[in-house]
Amino acid sequence: MNSKERYQILFNKINQYNSGVKGMTRVAYTNEEQACTQAFMRMCKDEGLDIRIDPCGNAIGRREGRIKGLPPVLMGSHLDTVYQGGKYDGVVGVTAALEVIKRLNEKGIETDHPIEIISFACEESSRFGVSTLGSKAMAGTFDKDKVRHLKDHNGVTLEEALSLCALEIDSIEHASRTDEDIKAFFELHIEQGPVLENENKKIGIVTGIAAPVRFSIRIIGTPSHSGTTPMNMRNDALLGASQIALELEKIAINEQKYGTVATVGVLDIQAGAMNVVPGEVEIKVDIRGTSLESRQRVLDHLNQTIELVKRNRQLEILSQEIISEEPVLLSTEITNTMEMICKEQDIPFKTMPSGAGHDAMNMVKLCPTGLIFVPSVNGLSHHPDEYTDHDDILIGIDVLEKIVIHYSKMDSKI
Amino acid sequence: MNSKERYQILFNKINQYNSGVKGMTRVAYTNEEQACTQAFMRMCKDEGLDIRIDPCGNAIGRREGRIKGLPPVLMGSHLDTVYQGGKYDGVVGVTAALEVIKRLNEKGIETDHPIEIISFACEESSRFGVSTLGSKAMAGTFDKDKVRHLKDHNGVTLEEALSLCALEIDSIEHASRTDEDIKAFFELHIEQGPVLENENKKIGIVTGIAAPVRFSIRIIGTPSHSGTTPMNMRNDALLGASQIALELEKIAINEQKYGTVATVGVLDIQAGAMNVVPGEVEIKVDIRGTSLESRQRVLDHLNQTIELVKRNRQLEILSQEIISEEPVLLSTEITNTMEMICKEQDIPFKTMPSGAGHDAMNMVKLCPTGLIFVPSVNGLSHHPDEYTDHDDILIGIDVLEKIVIHYSKMDSKI
Repeated sequence: MNSKERYQILFNKINQYNSGVKGMTRVAYTNEEQACTQAFMRMCKDEGLDIRIDPCGNAIGRREGRIKGLPPVLMGSHLDTVYQGGKYDGVVGVTAALEVIKRLNEKGIETDHPIEIISFACEESSRFGVSTLGSKAMAGTFDKDKVRHLKDHNGVTLEEALSLCALEIDSIEHASRTDEDIKAFFELHIEQGPVLENENKKIGIVTGIAAPVRFSIRIIGTPSHSGTTPMNMRNDALLGASQIALELEKIAINEQKYGTVATVGVLDIQAGAMNVVPGEVEIKVDIRGTSLESRQRVLDHLNQTIELVKRNRQLEILSQEIISEEPVLLSTEITNTMEMICKEQDIPFKTMPSGAGHDAMNMVKLCPTGLIFVPSVNGLSHHPDEYTDHDDILIGIDVLEKIVIHYSKMDSKI
Repeated sequence: MNSKERYQILFNKINQYNSGVKGMTRVAYTNEEQACTQAFMRMCKDEGLDIRIDPCGNAIGRREGRIKGLPPVLMGSHLDTVYQGGKYDGVVGVTAALEVIKRLNEKGIETDHPIEIISFACEESSRFGVSTLGSKAMAGTFDKDKVRHLKDHNGVTLEEALSLCALEIDSIEHASRTDEDIKAFFELHIEQGPVLENENKKIGIVTGIAAPVRFSIRIIGTPSHSGTTPMNMRNDALLGASQIALELEKIAINEQKYGTVATVGVLDIQAGAMNVVPGEVEIKVDIRGTSLESRQRVLDHLNQTIELVKRNRQLEILSQEIISEEPVLLSTEITNTMEMICKEQDIPFKTMPSGAGHDAMNMVKLCPTGLIFVPSVNGLSHHPDEYTDHDDILIGIDVLEKIVIHYSKMDSKI
């Protein structure tokens, strides 16, 4: 059995765990997800790994190194999904890590450094509205009192959900590995966007992870009768919102070379009706980029636009920041090594930012971190039709194997 | 007691009938509205009018003329309101008609033609989604099988609501007065828009009633991840919708001199979320004007805009007409007489279209019709804060009295 056949079986085994009819539903801290994690740990055991589960529910398999006392090289991703998601998001990274171990075992390769593979707990925000809990716990940035009482749509709190998995929210700080020396962390993930497919690249070498700044903007005009209010006596809140949305697009297009993107994803008209000129509109704006300067230029221009629309349309506009996170830059040592590997193997690659968040962005706090993308067909993700060709995944596994072997040599430097 | 004091008492009496806490709720065919109609009929009786209620629930009071066999001159409006509406919409026209009768009685004026005052049933569309039922029935354009099963928000059908008022939907055709000769109809109404107030005019002489053409437009793009989809790989349905809304405004401003207006009052993003590029948006467009040519130019330009947006943004756009009504032109003989009256009395007036529908638009099918506006403070209507100064209403009543006296002379021609 070759690596591709073997990988196919592994991939299918993991995706047996599903509570949904449409797509994959294997939500964090549910029976399906716990059963899946359990199966993953058995498979790690079968490969001779020492297994453990940390106080946040992160599943870890460890392969000892040849030289005692060296810090481990880590790789992994997550097995939980969104509701009605796909088979690839997260799963690819965990199964790839296990396949790398199988290859090392098969080839009898011993590494200087120990290697650990990790399935992070609760990466998706679908259930409790917070993401990457497992890697946050490992990075020591899990604020238990902020999230303890968060509820899923059945009213179950995070604390209760953890308890059902025999995990204690008050022990989660013990999942932290901040006191430990870790050599590096690598994550293989699907792109979740259309860039690699469109540019015919097989590997995305991620240079940084964009962080969103998000606003809720309330635009307040005057509701009035759509038949009796002349055009020049209106304060139409929807037209103000439309102007802001279009201008935001224009600004973001100008920042395209920095990978900055901006989106109005939510627009609500208060008491909208066909015969009423919209009096109040709320929009929600999401701006992301790995370049803080570029993101700031978009923000500045957005604020100028708001002022202009306010004045020209005599609207009241109230802007409120919902979240503002810092972009994360990944290790250039690692991206350089990845480039070298791709060039040696003749793999078409692209260095690029990640627009979505990943466990890697938390692991940056512990050690030099690398993130590798494989193409997503049609850029689809969080969707039953999410798809990545298995040949493409195997190319990703090749790169992951090579980078892990590289950094698990004692003389490799980061 | 002068006319103003007397009118104030009448106005307040009518507005005692209210089931709402906020504003006025006296919805068609409810106990409050029926009680109010009943009170109106008693007041008509007190003024010596012959009263009757027609099979649609229109309340009619008749003052005989001096010369037998002449067709009647009609005036009136409606007593029903929207939910949480104001005290003026409709009420002003009905109470003004009664005040005109009181003045004639007080002055001992006999007219050649009979005069009838009417409180039309169910003018507002709030309860059953259809408007001006009473005047439609009178004009013989009531399609009972189309509206019979329409339900209010409690699930009561129009047929049942009529039955509770001792009215039979199958007898409604007998409310038709198409076989009768009618000299003219006059309606006094609040403007429901800001034009008269803004231009410091006391009387609006309405030349025509704008009719809406309404569309539902579905804009279909591709939903995608707001973080991972570069700006140039998006098919953002909301941006397409925004462009259409702004262009529609531009076109309507160009047609301002014809009184044409255009509004996007409804915009819904399907499954809108902060981290998703909008994949599908529905907007509802309302275009009104009294000039068919002007309205057509707006429509043509709207269609060109849709084609352009479709092409430039690679969106699918499906446009569906919801309603297309013909504008109604009112009698120029009557508007000329009204102008003459205003000039004689030194009343600042404006000839203008009506953007909202009124019972007058149905009465046009029966006889020459005139519609008089008095100012609405802040253009507000269908709102608890709807307000018209009583001095302004009295100016309206003066004009109504004069025009009714004018046309109830046998030698007056239309």
